[in-house]
Amino acid sequence: MSTHTISCKACFAYSEKDIRVEQRELEYQDEDVLVKVDRGGICGSDIHYYQHGRAGMSVLKHPMVVGHEFVGVVSKAPVDSNLRVGQRVAVNPSQPCNHCVFCLEGKQNLCSAMRFMGSAQFDPHVNGGFSEYVVAAVKQCIPYDEHAEPKVIAFAEPLAVAIHAVNAAGTLVGKKVLVIGAGPIGCLILAAALSAGAAEAVACDVSDRCLTLAAQMGATATFNPMNKDSAAFYQRDRGYFDVVFEASGSPAAISSTVALTRPAGTVVQVGMGASSVEYPVMPMLVKEIRWVGSFRFIDEFDTAVKWLQDGRINPLPLLSGEYQPEAIESALIAAADKTISSKIQIKF
Amino acid sequence: MSTHTISCKACFAYSEKDIRVEQRELEYQDEDVLVKVDRGGICGSDIHYYQHGRAGMSVLKHPMVVGHEFVGVVSKAPVDSNLRVGQRVAVNPSQPCNHCVFCLEGKQNLCSAMRFMGSAQFDPHVNGGFSEYVVAAVKQCIPYDEHAEPKVIAFAEPLAVAIHAVNAAGTLVGKKVLVIGAGPIGCLILAAALSAGAAEAVACDVSDRCLTLAAQMGATATFNPMNKDSAAFYQRDRGYFDVVFEASGSPAAISSTVALTRPAGTVVQVGMGASSVEYPVMPMLVKEIRWVGSFRFIDEFDTAVKWLQDGRINPLPLLSGEYQPEAIESALIAAADKTISSKIQIKF
Amino acid sequence: MSTHTISCKACFAYSEKDIRVEQRELEYQDEDVLVKVDRGGICGSDIHYYQHGRAGMSVLKHPMVVGHEFVGVVSKAPVDSNLRVGQRVAVNPSQPCNHCVFCLEGKQNLCSAMRFMGSAQFDPHVNGGFSEYVVAAVKQCIPYDEHAEPKVIAFAEPLAVAIHAVNAAGTLVGKKVLVIGAGPIGCLILAAALSAGAAEAVACDVSDRCLTLAAQMGATATFNPMNKDSAAFYQRDRGYFDVVFEASGSPAAISSTVALTRPAGTVVQVGMGASSVEYPVMPMLVKEIRWVGSFRFIDEFDTAVKWLQDGRINPLPLLSGEYQPEAIESALIAAADKTISSKIQIKF
Amino acid sequence: MSTHTISCKACFAYSEKDIRVEQRELEYQDEDVLVKVDRGGICGSDIHYYQHGRAGMSVLKHPMVVGHEFVGVVSKAPVDSNLRVGQRVAVNPSQPCNHCVFCLEGKQNLCSAMRFMGSAQFDPHVNGGFSEYVVAAVKQCIPYDEHAEPKVIAFAEPLAVAIHAVNAAGTLVGKKVLVIGAGPIGCLILAAALSAGAAEAVACDVSDRCLTLAAQMGATATFNPMNKDSAAFYQRDRGYFDVVFEASGSPAAISSTVALTRPAGTVVQVGMGASSVEYPVMPMLVKEIRWVGSFRFIDEFDTAVKWLQDGRINPLPLLSGEYQPEAIESALIAAADKTISSKIQIKF
Repeated sequence: MSTHTISCKACFAYSEKDIRVEQRELEYQDEDVLVKVDRGGICGSDIHYYQHGRAGMSVLKHPMVVGHEFVGVVSKAPVDSNLRVGQRVAVNPSQPCNHCVFCLEGKQNLCSAMRFMGSAQFDPHVNGGFSEYVVAAVKQCIPYDEHAEPKVIAFAEPLAVAIHAVNAAGTLVGKKVLVIGAGPIGCLILAAALSAGAAEAVACDVSDRCLTLAAQMGATATFNPMNKDSAAFYQRDRGYFDVVFEASGSPAAISSTVALTRPAGTVVQVGMGASSVEYPVMPMLVKEIRWVGSFRFIDEFDTAVKWLQDGRINPLPLLSGEYQPEAIESALIAAADKTISSKIQIKF
Repeated sequence: MSTHTISCKACFAYSEKDIRVEQRELEYQDEDVLVKVDRGGICGSDIHYYQHGRAGMSVLKHPMVVGHEFVGVVSKAPVDSNLRVGQRVAVNPSQPCNHCVFCLEGKQNLCSAMRFMGSAQFDPHVNGGFSEYVVAAVKQCIPYDEHAEPKVIAFAEPLAVAIHAVNAAGTLVGKKVLVIGAGPIGCLILAAALSAGAAEAVACDVSDRCLTLAAQMGATATFNPMNKDSAAFYQRDRGYFDVVFEASGSPAAISSTVALTRPAGTVVQVGMGASSVEYPVMPMLVKEIRWVGSFRFIDEFDTAVKWLQDGRINPLPLLSGEYQPEAIESALIAAADKTISSKIQIKF
Repeated sequence: MSTHTISCKACFAYSEKDIRVEQRELEYQDEDVLVKVDRGGICGSDIHYYQHGRAGMSVLKHPMVVGHEFVGVVSKAPVDSNLRVGQRVAVNPSQPCNHCVFCLEGKQNLCSAMRFMGSAQFDPHVNGGFSEYVVAAVKQCIPYDEHAEPKVIAFAEPLAVAIHAVNAAGTLVGKKVLVIGAGPIGCLILAAALSAGAAEAVACDVSDRCLTLAAQMGATATFNPMNKDSAAFYQRDRGYFDVVFEASGSPAAISSTVALTRPAGTVVQVGMGASSVEYPVMPMLVKEIRWVGSFRFIDEFDTAVKWLQDGRINPLPLLSGEYQPEAIESALIAAADKTISSKIQIKF
Repeated sequence: MSTHTISCKACFAYSEKDIRVEQRELEYQDEDVLVKVDRGGICGSDIHYYQHGRAGMSVLKHPMVVGHEFVGVVSKAPVDSNLRVGQRVAVNPSQPCNHCVFCLEGKQNLCSAMRFMGSAQFDPHVNGGFSEYVVAAVKQCIPYDEHAEPKVIAFAEPLAVAIHAVNAAGTLVGKKVLVIGAGPIGCLILAAALSAGAAEAVACDVSDRCLTLAAQMGATATFNPMNKDSAAFYQRDRGYFDVVFEASGSPAAISSTVALTRPAGTVVQVGMGASSVEYPVMPMLVKEIRWVGSFRFIDEFDTAVKWLQDGRINPLPLLSGEYQPEAIESALIAAADKTISSKIQIKF
């Protein structure tokens, strides 16, 4: 076994409002895959690292390459693997330990020693994918067909998050579904819910731009929560929806889920942000609402690649712009402006 | 078919702090069962009607006979039923419509037209069981063996609530369980969790008297949440318990459940009271906690009678006192004093 | 309330090989819906009544109008209903009692007093839909849009059966699915499985004609079980499929499911016919296979109408021919010939 | 790290009717636990190795130490473990690989590279526990209290199998349960079902001796399937039982389960033996019976030790005799005679 090195350019988050494109030395072993990155999408956590030097409870302690939604081309692969040089791959950024009690229960997303690419959850942080080259394990590299567009497959990671949320809800076949928060994750949940058999998938957002996007992604109806008539319509008969996906993280939205959900219905919490919320416990109890958290994904990454490649879900209405890595700061600023952007991609 | 009438004494709640023992005329039909009430337990909602003229969202609009935890003896039964005069029965106070969408999904506890005895949820209210005689349907009358004590079987209704909460959690076989709030319902949940196979059942309460009762009811350990070491012990490794039953209704207790529950664990909300609560959404999401409401019961009433009759659960440590119906006001005042009372029964 | 009468033509099964088109007097009440039948599909049970005078355990004891997959137009509706004359409707042939223990558990398909249209399960039998006019309850009539074709919506009943089988399997999101038996039900299960999010849906049949149809219905692969290499391919690694739908009823096919299913996988039994089968119990036990029966449908009929109307599933590749009611015998003979026919419809 | 050796006596199965007590050299490492075996129970597979040189599909290819139900005392333990010399332990014979796809889904009992002690499933076989000393990993050694009797805790392994079967059924709270086959596993399932909250647990066996034992283990009723009236009683109303555990492996018993199970009920297959069976597919389909295999156990071993130690289950009625290791052949012959024996233990 020998160690190799390659020099390449990458986007390092240093601290609040300090992001730099720098050259780095990247080491890899014979059993690793070297992936030449094609492009990657900016996620909310990337924006938070830039804006605040932290994402939720994950605080930057040293410079870290950001980005965890990316695709590339195999530049070198172990000879005994099924990967060949030139193969296009989506890279699964999740690296669970596969030894802890949660991994051995099949809940790798709850791994106590997770090494998630582009995340400062643990120290040392794990570098991400906004880099000319990335080193990954064979099992992280999911091949995809030539005919599929990289800008489509680059949605695999957020779509995996969406499909995991769908799975958290239980079967959606024939169900009436609401998605609150029509950002990229909310819109992908909406599309995934329909692909999982939902009868209706309604989108709710305070932004009319986002509602328009949701309609393009297949929403069977949309409404603005500021519209009291719409909200009242969906609260009638003790709540209209079988399943509500809360993808905004807004405390007011979270509080509203109980009235919108029918008795014995389910609310899936995907939206981050709220550290605490005023929650109507009594109606939740009397209606026997089930409220479940959904975090990252397990094996849904493979399903996401498949659905994107098959064309079951077209994410391109969500793609608001493409930037060069040198323009990473402008890209982050644009991505953070929800009045104009949904998903921004960096093209290497 | 003919209508019969019997005159009897009953405890009527009129409004806040106004409860009266009065004679009433009770009508019944040939197909009804006339039950001579033996005794009944005072529930928290009975106390609330007395103290505040309301229980949660149910407001007294006219005088109503209180009490919904009671047993009696068949005084008259339809000739074609399996009931005989003199048969001891527990009376199930739940009268779902069996026609609404929730009933036809098997969720009779969520019935949109429920007529629950001793409840002011709908107008006109449904009279309860603190009455010398009560009229019930055949299927409400669950026979029990001569050898079982009425004061034991009178716990069937709250035990049904407890078993329903256990069922809401999913299987408890081999699980580590916490019950927060060691009042009558909490202690019955604790006993029911053990009867359903829990490996450990820990009780948490601010009252040492209640913790002692919990230990008598089988708690494998107890702790006072004011004891920081205990709380910290059960929060280690991202939370100790597979399942937490929140039976206190206290906002602080509800907030504490997330830290005490292991990732992918379940919290069942049984305690009423809190109209809203500061809830730690982010940790709940990242740990994928499932929080479910549990309201009343479905077919668990029959199981409750069976378990009490079999001696699998002995509720008598919870019985703090017995009163005559004429002393209903004193009984309610005693029942409301948590420093001295758990369950108080009225003996007819 | 008053009783009305209409005279109309209908297809009566009398006994083995004896089916007659006769005039009948149809009575209906004010609260009923009178539906002018547009068209209906021939089901396997219709064929069995014609061929053998029985369908499984249901034996013809008196003449009965056959047909339970049909659509029509409202000819008269109660004034207080949401139905209007001229409205196109799919008619749900299922009439559970909504009183028995199974109905009150939400399992109306297992009703102990079911009155299923066109079925001789109970005596007197319940007349079916191969009739110029049919009387139905308001809740049996599911309106559908003008833009949808009646010949498409006439697949609602068998698609409901297919979706119920999908629901019996649990969530299919990302799963590898096999359907054995690519007749109309098998092909609809295949399409429903994909609409419910299956990653792969493979069809298996001894008929190449049926496999071609399955491919048109969306099968991601097909194979003939006589091809030993294909069967071996799908048996490797202790079985390839997460879920197998057995829709052939063939004893050999049923026996083969265990080897084709991965450990902890699920087999759903939909195919009727086999009264008993040699089943490999030991491998089933060691692999912890779950084998579940799926019978008719519950609320899946509404979902079926929705999916057909939305165009999520196009059933028309399965439509092999249309006949006039007068040609019912020829239609039944054609429908029974699996070398040429999948679904045959009767057009009124 | 260094390798140690100890010489000890063990019971080796060589082939059909050839079992020998021989001295062996046992190697162990610093990180291993050396357990001095106290006693162990004879399982059906031990009997099969003796009688036929094989157990199901596992064929003896070389001499193997039999026995996988055993307890002992720690003789040496790694210094950094929580085990101390002299600690009493139950030894979990299950050694899943924790790397294969099934292990990483939390289904270690279905491990594709399982090394189960005393099993010839793989070659080389894994030696078992009928040996003066045994080497085990720290996590295989479950400490138990001094006050519990070794002959009780030696039932941990078969009780783990029983609890796993109970878990395969889903929650049993309030359910009517039947166990067919009242041998040691069947009787332990019966006791475990009651400990998991079953309302009724009925036993069925052709042996009156076994039915008497079942009654001692808590059966609420028993019946002999040769008694037509009893069988008919439990078949009425489309089947009496919510859950049936088939623990006999007899083809006739397996066939009978469908008629004894209520619609939508569950049958758990635990009994081995039948390689195939005539199974009534049509009634299974029409009643939507769920038939699931249950194989070995996952984390139920810990629960078994706990329940035995707590006294929730008393297995001693099942203990029919104790033998010295030198009398292993007589012990196996006695254990195989179901007219006189349930569980036989070997005492070291």
